[in-house]
Amino acid sequence: MANSKYEYVKSFELPDNLLPSTWIIVRIDGRGFRKFSEAHEFEKPNDENALMLMNSCAISLLDDFPDIVFAYGVSDEYSFVFKKSSQIYKRRASKILSTCVSLFSSTYVMKWAEFFPNKPLKYAPSFDGRVVLYPTVAHVHDYLSWRQVDCHINNQYNTCLWTLVKSGKTNEEAQKFLKGTQKQEKNEILFQQFGINYNTLPPMFRKGSCVFREEVHEISKSKKVKKKVVVDHCDIICPGDMHFWNEHPYILSDDQ
Amino acid sequence: MANSKYEYVKSFELPDNLLPSTWIIVRIDGRGFRKFSEAHEFEKPNDENALMLMNSCAISLLDDFPDIVFAYGVSDEYSFVFKKSSQIYKRRASKILSTCVSLFSSTYVMKWAEFFPNKPLKYAPSFDGRVVLYPTVAHVHDYLSWRQVDCHINNQYNTCLWTLVKSGKTNEEAQKFLKGTQKQEKNEILFQQFGINYNTLPPMFRKGSCVFREEVHEISKSKKVKKKVVVDHCDIICPGDMHFWNEHPYILSDDQ
Amino acid sequence: MANSKYEYVKSFELPDNLLPSTWIIVRIDGRGFRKFSEAHEFEKPNDENALMLMNSCAISLLDDFPDIVFAYGVSDEYSFVFKKSSQIYKRRASKILSTCVSLFSSTYVMKWAEFFPNKPLKYAPSFDGRVVLYPTVAHVHDYLSWRQVDCHINNQYNTCLWTLVKSGKTNEEAQKFLKGTQKQEKNEILFQQFGINYNTLPPMFRKGSCVFREEVHEISKSKKVKKKVVVDHCDIICPGDMHFWNEHPYILSDDQ
Amino acid sequence: MANSKYEYVKSFELPDNLLPSTWIIVRIDGRGFRKFSEAHEFEKPNDENALMLMNSCAISLLDDFPDIVFAYGVSDEYSFVFKKSSQIYKRRASKILSTCVSLFSSTYVMKWAEFFPNKPLKYAPSFDGRVVLYPTVAHVHDYLSWRQVDCHINNQYNTCLWTLVKSGKTNEEAQKFLKGTQKQEKNEILFQQFGINYNTLPPMFRKGSCVFREEVHEISKSKKVKKKVVVDHCDIICPGDMHFWNEHPYILSDDQ
Repeated sequence: MANSKYEYVKSFELPDNLLPSTWIIVRIDGRGFRKFSEAHEFEKPNDENALMLMNSCAISLLDDFPDIVFAYGVSDEYSFVFKKSSQIYKRRASKILSTCVSLFSSTYVMKWAEFFPNKPLKYAPSFDGRVVLYPTVAHVHDYLSWRQVDCHINNQYNTCLWTLVKSGKTNEEAQKFLKGTQKQEKNEILFQQFGINYNTLPPMFRKGSCVFREEVHEISKSKKVKKKVVVDHCDIICPGDMHFWNEHPYILSDDQ
Repeated sequence: MANSKYEYVKSFELPDNLLPSTWIIVRIDGRGFRKFSEAHEFEKPNDENALMLMNSCAISLLDDFPDIVFAYGVSDEYSFVFKKSSQIYKRRASKILSTCVSLFSSTYVMKWAEFFPNKPLKYAPSFDGRVVLYPTVAHVHDYLSWRQVDCHINNQYNTCLWTLVKSGKTNEEAQKFLKGTQKQEKNEILFQQFGINYNTLPPMFRKGSCVFREEVHEISKSKKVKKKVVVDHCDIICPGDMHFWNEHPYILSDDQ
Repeated sequence: MANSKYEYVKSFELPDNLLPSTWIIVRIDGRGFRKFSEAHEFEKPNDENALMLMNSCAISLLDDFPDIVFAYGVSDEYSFVFKKSSQIYKRRASKILSTCVSLFSSTYVMKWAEFFPNKPLKYAPSFDGRVVLYPTVAHVHDYLSWRQVDCHINNQYNTCLWTLVKSGKTNEEAQKFLKGTQKQEKNEILFQQFGINYNTLPPMFRKGSCVFREEVHEISKSKKVKKKVVVDHCDIICPGDMHFWNEHPYILSDDQ
Repeated sequence: MANSKYEYVKSFELPDNLLPSTWIIVRIDGRGFRKFSEAHEFEKPNDENALMLMNSCAISLLDDFPDIVFAYGVSDEYSFVFKKSSQIYKRRASKILSTCVSLFSSTYVMKWAEFFPNKPLKYAPSFDGRVVLYPTVAHVHDYLSWRQVDCHINNQYNTCLWTLVKSGKTNEEAQKFLKGTQKQEKNEILFQQFGINYNTLPPMFRKGSCVFREEVHEISKSKKVKKKVVVDHCDIICPGDMHFWNEHPYILSDDQ
């Protein structure tokens, strides 16, 4: 085409290929979701429908990107693990990041009414994202452990805080009351003052959500193992909780 | 918090700040939009509603990000120019890219029904994006010229192609027929065979869409010049078409 | 060749091309030069021979790299300005940085005996380096001003400090004595206590060294303007000292 | 200091920290060494003194940088492996690259006379360098295998070529003669025509040079294992030649 005079501007597009043979994790975070959750009256400390909508978006990503082998979500964030041998988009960071964030965002709006049939979306939500590389499976385990420990800490705190608030304390009073309390103390407050056994609260709230491909054992002519994307709320903290990883060795094996 | 054991994984997040004092352009492209436009029966070669939906998303970005001073859209792509002094998100490339793509994508779905009231969205669309830096205003002019020249070339070709197809040729026959024809020849085909004067077709189709802040002259107490985001279909190719830039010197002045 | 099995490791070499049309500055710094200067008994606060050796290395770089249009040196550091249109090594940062630092380092040792005929080099000196990009000529002016202002500040301080030390004070006493003094006060100390007029000290000490190509006006058959690399100790702080830049407009013009 | 007006230019220095927990390899290559070796009449195909000078420079780097655990050199190139946990210079790529190349270059000149007592250095040699990251020990093994296989291929070819040239052929005739010959054929040419048993040529020529820390077993009061930097010409191609690595497990263990 006759566009040569200006086409030199393309030379300013610099390559951003990610180091080969390294685990790619894309983490997406709600942008201004405190305001968004208030505007849409999300239940506190956890809105089951909002979390299930997030999970549904994550499933869409695993359906669209075969190289995503695992995803972990909590609150308004989701992490997507690409297998380390992935050659998706020639491992161009911008392309990987932007398509993930874009599909997650559009799916969030698309599926909103499915999870909030009676709440119209007041404005378009948005997410930011980043790409991080990890050299080994051990790092990926530690990354996911980091997120799930964060989930535990934040959820226990928020559960106490909102229980206190619902019982009549102001937010500030509740925060002051909880300041410096240890994990065990928080559980006791919940149990003794409110009869709540923290450990029996819904696993999705306490553990976050794992999205991955589960092997489906069915009689098929091809004898190939089929897999389908599922959501579960498992313990994935390493090295303490290796049960899940031992049961699903293929997820991070990178030779699937 | 007691998350220290795993928190080291955060050290793998490397900085990606963009060079200061440089124009940032984020370009968004529809991902698989050929299929998407067929699935949603977009009119060929241009679907006015689809373009207006794109424009509406671009307006949302200018409303949300004051540092975007100009946007140019054609077909399923949109370019956003951030002023060169922008400190948005400390100029972190991933953050800027991901929030732009995200908001554009969610807004696209959110506003779909406004432009396609009778066509339900069949699946979630997505966009990819990239960030490019340009050192001077002259480069930004050339970048925008590059995109508008591309618009001209593609639109003229597509207009001919689809006119021929609608007249009974197959797509292959039409392509073969157009192969090697010059700009002037294409206009003559349109005019002599179909009575179409290319230059009177809608400017949005021929020139794409410019989104920017127009100064609003009204009597206000503060005496500050107000601006509002508008869409126009102007000639912006430099140095040929300096009229627009001369009329709007503040857009790329970077001291607004 | 039959090296294919292992050749995949080359794919881990990622591109590092610098943004086009941007001024490239390579700054080299002596590594551990406090120790090096003591080991080789450099005169304090300035060793003329050591500075002239640095200048001689800088000249070698301008002789080898036509794209270096200006260099500025002070103490054990040197900055090299590549013209903004330079395509040297396809603008690969590592290649540019490593060859500059390498040639500077090897030349330093090679020419040592020329400047220190009676002092054998006790061990190999080394330099570190970095590459920085600047979008406009104004930034390059500011960069060079930054370095020359630093030269002024440091040299005035060091001149006072070492004059006091040579007069019998300990280093700590001299530092304490100078703490908080302003530029003018320092000059007065030098003049009133030691009869030293700071402004008549050698320009190389006070202003650092500029290395550039001077136009040589001679009757030549080709009528082309010849240039040769020279060292000068000019005032280059902008916008105050524009004299040098006005006299040498071709240096940063980028169309030579 | 009063340098604030211009100090903003420092903000253009962007971070370039390397991914943590990844093996860093710095490879240095002679720049224009064909010309340099001709100017200094290096013996062909291998100049023992030139290689020993290269090795001596590599030893200097291991002496200076404890984090370099292994180096491999062949011809005018040298690769330095930093342990994956290295925090040297906060893993800033430019700093690591530039100091390595600088020290190598200055040492090369410094030690020249030791290896070439009767040949003055005609001009300053220079090297370029690059930094490459590898996620696992297996990649490091493959990287080093890649370089040693290259050494084998090139050295066998060059040995044949220069033997033919010394026997009277022109360089072009020799190249033509060797074109398409396999490894075994080359060995037979050397043996049958010139009585040279390739496998008895000096190991340094055939295998390149490995530089590493050898454990020194001596009776010491501290009972700590001492190590000293040595040069050897070992087989290091994996997985074929694991003998060396099995004998020196601590070199790439990263917990030394």
